[in-house]
Amino acid sequence: MPHPEFLPIQWKSTYLELLDQRILPGKKEFLKLTTADDTIIAIREMAVRGAPAIAITGVFALTLGAKSKSGASTENETSKLLSSVLESRPTAVNLSYAIREAKNRIQGIVDWETIAQIWETYGLEMMKEDLAANKALGENGVSLFPKDQSEFHIITHCNTGALATAGHGTALGVIRSLRDVGKKVVVYADETRPFLQGSRLTAFEMMEEGIECYIITDGMSGWLMNHKKIDAVLVGCDRVAANGDTANKIGTYNLGIVAKEHGVPFYVCATKDSFDLNLKSGEEIPIEMRKESEVTQFDFLKEADGKYLFPEGKTSPLGARALNPSFDITKAHLIKNFITEFGCFPPSEISNRLKTV
Amino acid sequence: MPHPEFLPIQWKSTYLELLDQRILPGKKEFLKLTTADDTIIAIREMAVRGAPAIAITGVFALTLGAKSKSGASTENETSKLLSSVLESRPTAVNLSYAIREAKNRIQGIVDWETIAQIWETYGLEMMKEDLAANKALGENGVSLFPKDQSEFHIITHCNTGALATAGHGTALGVIRSLRDVGKKVVVYADETRPFLQGSRLTAFEMMEEGIECYIITDGMSGWLMNHKKIDAVLVGCDRVAANGDTANKIGTYNLGIVAKEHGVPFYVCATKDSFDLNLKSGEEIPIEMRKESEVTQFDFLKEADGKYLFPEGKTSPLGARALNPSFDITKAHLIKNFITEFGCFPPSEISNRLKTV
Repeated sequence: MPHPEFLPIQWKSTYLELLDQRILPGKKEFLKLTTADDTIIAIREMAVRGAPAIAITGVFALTLGAKSKSGASTENETSKLLSSVLESRPTAVNLSYAIREAKNRIQGIVDWETIAQIWETYGLEMMKEDLAANKALGENGVSLFPKDQSEFHIITHCNTGALATAGHGTALGVIRSLRDVGKKVVVYADETRPFLQGSRLTAFEMMEEGIECYIITDGMSGWLMNHKKIDAVLVGCDRVAANGDTANKIGTYNLGIVAKEHGVPFYVCATKDSFDLNLKSGEEIPIEMRKESEVTQFDFLKEADGKYLFPEGKTSPLGARALNPSFDITKAHLIKNFITEFGCFPPSEISNRLKTV
Repeated sequence: MPHPEFLPIQWKSTYLELLDQRILPGKKEFLKLTTADDTIIAIREMAVRGAPAIAITGVFALTLGAKSKSGASTENETSKLLSSVLESRPTAVNLSYAIREAKNRIQGIVDWETIAQIWETYGLEMMKEDLAANKALGENGVSLFPKDQSEFHIITHCNTGALATAGHGTALGVIRSLRDVGKKVVVYADETRPFLQGSRLTAFEMMEEGIECYIITDGMSGWLMNHKKIDAVLVGCDRVAANGDTANKIGTYNLGIVAKEHGVPFYVCATKDSFDLNLKSGEEIPIEMRKESEVTQFDFLKEADGKYLFPEGKTSPLGARALNPSFDITKAHLIKNFITEFGCFPPSEISNRLKTV
């Protein structure tokens, strides 16, 4: 019997069910979103994160908005609805692409009921495609692991799982796929400071799946590779340049260097829209600098009443300065293979492979 | 005018003044310890940390104990006092050495007043020697930096400063010495998870000294070396094997690998008692595994009432597993030079150099 799918976004015809990531890992609660406005708030307040997941949620926000109306739409009404969803997270590229596509699909249609149907279909299509891409990616990843070995020890960084996608995930998708073909997998999750996506989200997903998982701090990977045979490092990515340089969550580059030093294969899991052939190398990828307080006071962690769990002055002196680049660039020479939904290949083959998809 | 010395331990003839590290960096308060018992409690509860600092504090605990008595001592009385101090932190090697030496120095002496004087002299001697060793180490370190360059950018890991010693510190001592010869130093302090000695203690010391300091998470050093010219990495050590393999706070090894990849010189600051020539290589150095909750819930950070600031389930799921090696071994080939109070030399020269001291 296949393992039940862990699905953080579920469309229920009259409402959207969304795992509330703001309260993870403390509580596992699903939001029941019945209106466009509530769904927009859920996006804005980061109940959902991860580019594909945000885009899908946005299209269902549109659907709920259309369902609440009847009769003929005016251009003003549809524009207002489209922009209110778009503005919920203005920097999410996948969301703006989805909103554009949603707009294109209703050109010349004025009946709200039909519009709602079109958007619902589009949302379901996106979910299905994202899930299918992740599953294909996961299966392709499995092919890189020796068939005659029954147990694999894998280090991951950040969260690249079902929580950031329609389901299955990219790097965690490969791990799920290994489990699905009967392998035992032991995961070592970099906690991923400053935001702790590893300890908060990856550990949560792995526990949900019953996959053995140990949290390590970001400085432990070298010790671990010396101490135990690590079969692979699996990470996700935000953007890949034409030469293979890869932007991903801060700390990925250090992990790549440490893997190379130990001869541990370093794999980047990427769906086709992660590749940006307009960029020659990683030097052209802009790095977002985030606020210092995420490093000096863990200021993303709040109590229900909005107070910081870690107030200023507890983990660093009052007034201490910090640097907080949100991403780094892993150089292509550190990457053994990209694992994608259209196959696995080294950095040198990116241009050729992308031509065929 | 030389910069005023930052001294966390100060002997005031009738009492010991000790910077309370338990409440750093939130508050800067000195304990005034007038009895052996209070001083033992201060050691046990980690108001003071760092092997040299603990040993010095222990000898002043003895002194305060002897000063509270009068007349002739019995063997039973002195034994009791010596063991109560020794047991305050049973695993601290420097402390047990100091207690043995303190015992030797009072062989055949029964007058409490004389004993108190002997121990007071020994304590002051230890402080003076440790401070002198650190200053010599610092000055030797300065010689590795180009004389014609006025500004240096340095990455550090953990806390190797005045807070762990009688003053000046080892790796932070080199930074202080560079400042003392008129150089501008910019320090990037690895926060050093799980215990955050970098963000809590190093950032505090650098701010006290007015030295520019930025906290980075342990995964940011690679990004930083790409982004900015880093002149050196300076770390301390807990134990150095004959071949140069070096045990230090977890995360040091990753930093060493990343420095090598970028051609940044990696220097280990060590006083002579850190070298253990009985150990052939790092493989013979045992690594202490600490409790998982330090990683999963930051359980060293407590409110005044003893409640954890970061209760279980906030930064990782309830029941999540973790690994928590407290140290790692940086392989000798990653180390460019050891910086010691008796000179600077590469790993290959350890045996020869140690013969002469």
